[in-house]
Amino acid sequence: MALALPRGRAGARAMSQRIPAHVGDSLAAIGTPALVVDLERFERNLAMMAGATQGIRLRPHAKSHKCASIALAQLARGAVGICCQKTDEAAAFVAAGVRDILVTNEVVEPAKLARLAALARNATIGVLVDSPSVIPLLSGAARHADAMLDVYVEIDVGAQRCGVPPGKPALALARLLAGAPGVRFRGLHAYHGAAQHLRAPSERRAAVAGAASHALTTRELIERDGIECPIVTGAGTGTWRHERDSGVYNELQPGSYIFMDADYGRNVVDAQDLRFEQSLFVLAGVMSVPAADRAIVDAGLKSLAFDSGPPLVHARDGVDYVRASDEHGVLRVDASSSPLALGERIRLIPGHCDPTVNLYDFIVAVRSGIVEAVWPVDARGAVG
Amino acid sequence: MALALPRGRAGARAMSQRIPAHVGDSLAAIGTPALVVDLERFERNLAMMAGATQGIRLRPHAKSHKCASIALAQLARGAVGICCQKTDEAAAFVAAGVRDILVTNEVVEPAKLARLAALARNATIGVLVDSPSVIPLLSGAARHADAMLDVYVEIDVGAQRCGVPPGKPALALARLLAGAPGVRFRGLHAYHGAAQHLRAPSERRAAVAGAASHALTTRELIERDGIECPIVTGAGTGTWRHERDSGVYNELQPGSYIFMDADYGRNVVDAQDLRFEQSLFVLAGVMSVPAADRAIVDAGLKSLAFDSGPPLVHARDGVDYVRASDEHGVLRVDASSSPLALGERIRLIPGHCDPTVNLYDFIVAVRSGIVEAVWPVDARGAVG
Repeated sequence: MALALPRGRAGARAMSQRIPAHVGDSLAAIGTPALVVDLERFERNLAMMAGATQGIRLRPHAKSHKCASIALAQLARGAVGICCQKTDEAAAFVAAGVRDILVTNEVVEPAKLARLAALARNATIGVLVDSPSVIPLLSGAARHADAMLDVYVEIDVGAQRCGVPPGKPALALARLLAGAPGVRFRGLHAYHGAAQHLRAPSERRAAVAGAASHALTTRELIERDGIECPIVTGAGTGTWRHERDSGVYNELQPGSYIFMDADYGRNVVDAQDLRFEQSLFVLAGVMSVPAADRAIVDAGLKSLAFDSGPPLVHARDGVDYVRASDEHGVLRVDASSSPLALGERIRLIPGHCDPTVNLYDFIVAVRSGIVEAVWPVDARGAVG
Repeated sequence: MALALPRGRAGARAMSQRIPAHVGDSLAAIGTPALVVDLERFERNLAMMAGATQGIRLRPHAKSHKCASIALAQLARGAVGICCQKTDEAAAFVAAGVRDILVTNEVVEPAKLARLAALARNATIGVLVDSPSVIPLLSGAARHADAMLDVYVEIDVGAQRCGVPPGKPALALARLLAGAPGVRFRGLHAYHGAAQHLRAPSERRAAVAGAASHALTTRELIERDGIECPIVTGAGTGTWRHERDSGVYNELQPGSYIFMDADYGRNVVDAQDLRFEQSLFVLAGVMSVPAADRAIVDAGLKSLAFDSGPPLVHARDGVDYVRASDEHGVLRVDASSSPLALGERIRLIPGHCDPTVNLYDFIVAVRSGIVEAVWPVDARGAVG
C-alpha cells in the first residue's frame, strides 16, 4: 500500500475546494451546491441583536459561522468577544486577529490544554471547568505557557450535559480556582441547551427562569464566600431575551441568530420575541427531472446536515425536499407547482445551520443578486 | 463590514485543520475527535472484495473515502478505475494520478461540463445522462476541450431517483449518443440505491433480480438496434454479490465495504454474504463525567453524520451514545459497565460512513496501536 503522499497533494486539495464564486458574479454564476448568505437579511440580524443588547455583554457564538469575517463584523458592532466550542476553533480566530475568546467547553487533555494556554499569550482566553481534577492541569498549562486563563465554572441548569450541579459543587470549584496559579475565576457558565428549541414561548421562559434562579443562588453562595463572581454567561438564539431580562445573566452567547434555520423556524414566537430573518441558504441546482412530480438537485447529505430534519425549499410553493442521499436531494413537485427545469436553481433552508456551515470551505455573500464577498470558513473542521 | 481578507488567512486555515497525528504516534497520542482506520481490518476488506471480483470489473466508489491513497490502493489490487459522484471530486483524483473515473451522476450545467471535459484530456472520464437535452451540451463541452467523454445511460431500476425508465427511453438516448460527436456511448448505469439497506437478504436478492432484468431487457433492445452496449454497471455494498452473479452486470461499484458503518451493520446477512469488517472509527475523548450514568465525549454533530442514526460505541458494553449537539456526544453508562474516566478514549462506529468521512480533512491509519500513515481526504467538501 502506497504510504508516500503523491506530489501535488496541496494542489489537489486546492482544486477540490474550488471557490464557488467570485466577487461581482451574478447569482446565476455561483457553482452549486454553495452556501449563500443574503447580506441584507444578515446585516439586519446583526443590527437587531446589537440594538437589543446595548445594556448587556454580547459574546456571539462563533461555532455557528466559524468565519473570521463574521466575527470581526460582530465585534465591530459592539460584541465584547466571541465564543468557540473547541481549542482548534479558537486558534483559527486568534490567528485572524480576534483577541477575546471564551471556549464554552471543558478541555481536559494535556496536549489540548497546552495549545489553549499558548493562545492565551496573544488573546484573552476563557474555558470552562466542571471537575476539580482538571484545575491543576489548567494551572500547569497556563504557567508553562507564561499566560493566564480565564476559567468559568459550568453549572448544569437543565440541559443534563456537562457541568456540576448548582450550589455547593460550584462553590467548591470556585474556591479551588481562587487559590490556583495561572487561572482567574471569572464566573459561571449556565447555558440551557435543551431550552433553545422548546416550541412554546412559555416553555422557554420557564426554563430560563429556572436556569437564572440556579445561577443566582450559586453566584450568591460564591460571593458570600468572599469570592468575586463577575460574570454569569449563557443564552442561545431561542432564549436570549429571557437571559437578557433576568437580572442575573450579564453576558449572552447567541449564535444562530445571524443565519436561522428550519429548526429554529419551528419555534413559536410571541409578540415580544424579535424575529430574525433566514439569511443562510444552500443554493442547489436541478440536475435531473425524471418525472412530472419529481426533480433531483445536487445537494444531499454532504451539502446539508440532517440531524434536525430535511431542508425546506425557499420561495417555491408546492415543492418539498423529501429524500436525500450523499450528493442528491429528491424534490417532490406538486401538480399545483410550476415545473422545475434542468439547471434551475433553488434555495434550501438548512434544517440546522451550525453543522451545515461546517460542511463548507466558503460562504458566498450576496447583495441584490450580486456576489459581494466570498468568506472562507476559517475554522471549518476544527473539531480538536 | 470588513470585506478584505485578513493576512494570514491561509495560516488560519492550516492551523484550524490541524493534522491530528503523526506517523509513529501511539493511539493515545492521536488528537480527538479523529477519523481512524484499523489497517488490518481495512486491508482484509480490500483483499476480500478483490478476491471475490476476479472475473468481473471492479470500479470501487471513491465517494466513500475521497482519498487518493485509498483509490491508488484499490487500483493496485486490480480495480479498473474508480467512481466519483461530482465533477470536483473527480478533479481531485485526476490531480492525484487516477486515470479512469466514472462520475456516476448527471452533469448538466455548462460550467461544470467544461470542467469535466477538461479532465477528460488527461484521464478516461465517464458521466451519466438521463435527458436528451443534455447530449448536445456533452458533445459541445467535449469538442471544446478536444477530448472524448464516455457516457452511460442511467436507467431507474427501482430507486426512483435519477434515470430514464428502462427500455425504449434508454434506447432513444443511446441512439442520440451514438450519433453525437465528442462522446462514446459505453453502456448502462443501473444502480439500485434503495436496495442497499433492505434488511432481509431475500429482499436485496429480489430487488437486484428486478434491476438485472430491466438492465438486460434494455441492453438487448439497444443491441438489436445495432448499437454496442459494452458495460452494465451498478451495485453497492449491500447488494454487489447479486449483481456479480446476475450474468447481466459486468462492472461493480461498491464503496462502503472498505469501512462499513452502523447502518450496513443492521443489514441481515446470510451464509453466502461476505462479511466486511468495521474498519473505520471516530476516536473520541471523554471530557466530562457529570454523573455515574453519564459521560460526555468531544464528538458531536460536526464529527459524525447523523442521517442514519447515532453512532454505536465500539467494544464497550453497557455504554450507548444517546444524544448529540454540535461538539458533544452524551453517553449513557449502564450500572453494569465500568465507569468512564476523564480523558479516556472510545471508538465510535459512525451511523453512515460516507458523509462522516466528508467532515474530516485527514484519516489516521493505525496498525497494532501505532499510526502508520495519515491520509489527506483529498476530495473533502468537493460537492461541485
